[in-house]
Amino acid sequence: MTGKKKSAQASVEAMYRVFTVPEAPESTLSRIDQNISGNLAGFLQEHIVAVERDLSEVEKNFADSAIPEKPIFVSEQAQFLLDKLVANSVHTASPSFIGHMTSALPYFMLPLSKIMIALNQNLVKTETSKAFTPMERQVLGMIHRLVYQQDGAYYRKWMHDPRHALGAMCSGGTVANLTALWVARNRAFPAEGSFRGLHQEGLFRALKYYGHDGAAILVSRRGHYSLRKAADVLGLGRDALIPVDTDDDNRIQIDALRDKCLELQRQKVKIMAICGIAGTTETGNVDPLDAMSDVAREFGAHFHVDAAWGGPTLFSRQHSHLMRGIEKADSVTFDAHKQLYVPMGVGLVVFRDPTMASAVEHHAQYIIRKGSRDLGSTTLEGSRPGMAMLIHSGLKILAREGYEILINQGIDKARTFADMITGHPDFELVTEPELNILTYRFCPARVQQALSAADTLQAERINMSLNRVTKYIQKTQRERGKAFVSRTRLEPARYGNFPCIVFRVVLANPLTTKEILDDILNEQKELAGEPGLKDEMDILYQHTEAVLGGPVAKRA
Amino acid sequence: MTGKKKSAQASVEAMYRVFTVPEAPESTLSRIDQNISGNLAGFLQEHIVAVERDLSEVEKNFADSAIPEKPIFVSEQAQFLLDKLVANSVHTASPSFIGHMTSALPYFMLPLSKIMIALNQNLVKTETSKAFTPMERQVLGMIHRLVYQQDGAYYRKWMHDPRHALGAMCSGGTVANLTALWVARNRAFPAEGSFRGLHQEGLFRALKYYGHDGAAILVSRRGHYSLRKAADVLGLGRDALIPVDTDDDNRIQIDALRDKCLELQRQKVKIMAICGIAGTTETGNVDPLDAMSDVAREFGAHFHVDAAWGGPTLFSRQHSHLMRGIEKADSVTFDAHKQLYVPMGVGLVVFRDPTMASAVEHHAQYIIRKGSRDLGSTTLEGSRPGMAMLIHSGLKILAREGYEILINQGIDKARTFADMITGHPDFELVTEPELNILTYRFCPARVQQALSAADTLQAERINMSLNRVTKYIQKTQRERGKAFVSRTRLEPARYGNFPCIVFRVVLANPLTTKEILDDILNEQKELAGEPGLKDEMDILYQHTEAVLGGPVAKRA
Repeated sequence: MTGKKKSAQASVEAMYRVFTVPEAPESTLSRIDQNISGNLAGFLQEHIVAVERDLSEVEKNFADSAIPEKPIFVSEQAQFLLDKLVANSVHTASPSFIGHMTSALPYFMLPLSKIMIALNQNLVKTETSKAFTPMERQVLGMIHRLVYQQDGAYYRKWMHDPRHALGAMCSGGTVANLTALWVARNRAFPAEGSFRGLHQEGLFRALKYYGHDGAAILVSRRGHYSLRKAADVLGLGRDALIPVDTDDDNRIQIDALRDKCLELQRQKVKIMAICGIAGTTETGNVDPLDAMSDVAREFGAHFHVDAAWGGPTLFSRQHSHLMRGIEKADSVTFDAHKQLYVPMGVGLVVFRDPTMASAVEHHAQYIIRKGSRDLGSTTLEGSRPGMAMLIHSGLKILAREGYEILINQGIDKARTFADMITGHPDFELVTEPELNILTYRFCPARVQQALSAADTLQAERINMSLNRVTKYIQKTQRERGKAFVSRTRLEPARYGNFPCIVFRVVLANPLTTKEILDDILNEQKELAGEPGLKDEMDILYQHTEAVLGGPVAKRA
Repeated sequence: MTGKKKSAQASVEAMYRVFTVPEAPESTLSRIDQNISGNLAGFLQEHIVAVERDLSEVEKNFADSAIPEKPIFVSEQAQFLLDKLVANSVHTASPSFIGHMTSALPYFMLPLSKIMIALNQNLVKTETSKAFTPMERQVLGMIHRLVYQQDGAYYRKWMHDPRHALGAMCSGGTVANLTALWVARNRAFPAEGSFRGLHQEGLFRALKYYGHDGAAILVSRRGHYSLRKAADVLGLGRDALIPVDTDDDNRIQIDALRDKCLELQRQKVKIMAICGIAGTTETGNVDPLDAMSDVAREFGAHFHVDAAWGGPTLFSRQHSHLMRGIEKADSVTFDAHKQLYVPMGVGLVVFRDPTMASAVEHHAQYIIRKGSRDLGSTTLEGSRPGMAMLIHSGLKILAREGYEILINQGIDKARTFADMITGHPDFELVTEPELNILTYRFCPARVQQALSAADTLQAERINMSLNRVTKYIQKTQRERGKAFVSRTRLEPARYGNFPCIVFRVVLANPLTTKEILDDILNEQKELAGEPGLKDEMDILYQHTEAVLGGPVAKRA
């Protein structure tokens, strides 16, 4: 062989090795594997949220836009990932990371995930998934039963029926909501007479045929942004997502919902869907689902419930009553990577009626042929991983009782934290927790006093200043990396719907203790006294003084 | 404590343990982990595709629809998964599994995946992803550069620019195509005068405002079914996906494309997008992208290229010319879990113009605020896992040279297999491989001879019989589990576009050898001689005899 040929041959052999299972337990890859495990365990045991390093600094490690020409060793890449990626990650499992819905994982998810990755099944069709397909159908059946509580005979009939699907598994709540509304849209404008259905002829002809000037989706002002995105994707336009006013507890006002429906009806707009929220993203409130289902029935609208967050509340005997009416929904979104504690990216939607998904059924010649058991015919996505395996494992290993404990703990903890905030002279609880989410802000007692005495203009000035304070504290606390709360903007009725920036807290990690919550409040109070905030605090106290007429303490 | 209280306390403590990193290397979980690893290695080393067991048999293990009340041990669930799930999975990494686009993984993906699972980052926002966000932007930049070949300065300007995105990462090719067409649709009907844009006002008003009677997406008859699904989801209707005739090599006919565009234009239908295919799913052919881009420009249409399969051909110096014109596309779909050899579920779309994604930009108050670096503002999905990490690792560890070897090998192997089929007296090559995909069928030389002499009716009879034979062989071979080829239906011009069922082969596993391909042909030939096919074979030979007028051998 010539030198060139030899080297080509060596490259080809290297490629074979890359795809071959290493047999020796002492292989390089095994050592790398152990090194990664050790490093990850170290990372996960640390109780900090993130190291203090600016993102533009981190970006320098990911600046190269050219795909490298020459291979590097796995060990080299593993070390790079541990040094530059893991070390600069957010410790979402930290008990002081209480700002978002991404939380800790039960540790058993890690070894079990390996099965999913190694088998690399594709759930679009049984030819690449075999046992994973019945398993996914079982998981859909279990969640369906949790929501709709049909009897065993019902599931024996439907769960494995190749012509039907009790739901659709997908990458997350956004696609779950989109899938539900896709079904709702196609069913709202079905084939009739000379019209072959919206799915076939499109929205333009559908509206013309049925004599509508538009189609609307109604949801409370607290609806998740994925619904507006869905309205856009589905061709309805973002305007078609009609926000309905909420009461003081961030729940949709039934009267306002009905009025809006009547108004739309007069405008010849089809009421395509009404969405209830079971756990609003920002405040964790649950809409009056039972009453909403009545309105949906009255107007012939699809009733969808976005239970991406709150769905697992059904596991709790104590709190499941909050979900009353969910069983009347035509479709319900669950996010598995939220309160089912499964690794990121899996959600699902279940349908009350197993024939409903046929509104979005697709077939092809090489897979998902008619009559096959392939799950891909009624999912928005095509190729999909076997994440159902991990939901299955959660439901078996934690079981209803385990999830109940997690749900109850989270709600109790939110109640405790709310009391801590209310009892603290420097903080104001903005929304009461109903599930395990609450919002609050830094707002010393004197400022609260001033706000209750202020006229509209004065209150606005104070709230604008408080907004800047809240934003500063939230950003700085995040950057310091010991703890993390998120922030959002709400329009509390008590302040005439003025947009107020608030801290948002999600209490889903069972390792978060009262002491940790105390530390978080203390750090926030300290941050409020930092030099960087001095000017703003001076402004805040001037406004406060202006209302109360007396001198105020310069510092909280 | 009372007994009840004690047991409640014990449950709570059990829950803490579940979420705590096991410290001892000799912990139960470590033992389970090792057990799983050993079992998986065993499974992956076996060179069979699947055990012979009917799905309805497998379903019995997944029949329970009730979520269990009481927790079980992790070890119990792990054993269940190994016995009932792994053992009944499809060995997609087997070198004799050559039927689908799901193939083997480089083994290093397994330990590296652990990092992704353990960190559980959420790419929707930097607050839950930090370093993963710049890494994902880098991966998008690298693929963008592979396609569009801009210089370093270009990527220094755009790659990490928080206001723009060079592409969007997603769960797979279907969502990538949908995202591209969503962008195309919104850009085709932008805000103008009193009209606030399709994204805001919807398709109905958009068409009315712009005076169109519809909007169309044009693609060859070989387009992936996800495009029809996208037309449905986007509200255009499945009819809006206009199939264009292909030439004998399954590539779109440019004249037919232009004619169709002119016809639609006369019907006042907006030419919204033209889709080129770089690697058709069924036959692996590449459309004349360069010429298509000219037509797209002529009609002011968005030019999208679905390179879900063929995109990585760009790594090959020898074969990248097949992709000529891809750099003129407005958007290009890549599937990472296909020929980037990354675990299931990740794809992406890149945009020629970094401002393009703004057509689908969404914001919320609590995340993806304007000006943030959050990647979630221009993705269809919300919460997403850090799969970009695995693409990054593939691009670094295999590098361009590694991917080039994989691409070249696959194409060479397909060429070799095509020669084997052509040289074999009992098989007929139906489509020549251009990339690493080909189709063929069982069709003995005498039958081929008869087909070429037959009149239309005679040929139809023979082809219908051959269809049943092909289907039987494919299903039986799959059930036996030693090897797997898929099947699809094509309309070969040589048989007057009669729908012919064919074996479909995808040669992406570097461990597939010529010997394995030989075995597959031999098994198929044997299956053709099985008693189960006897009646059908008799019919086939009768039809053959009827054409050729002479006696034919009863068995191939």
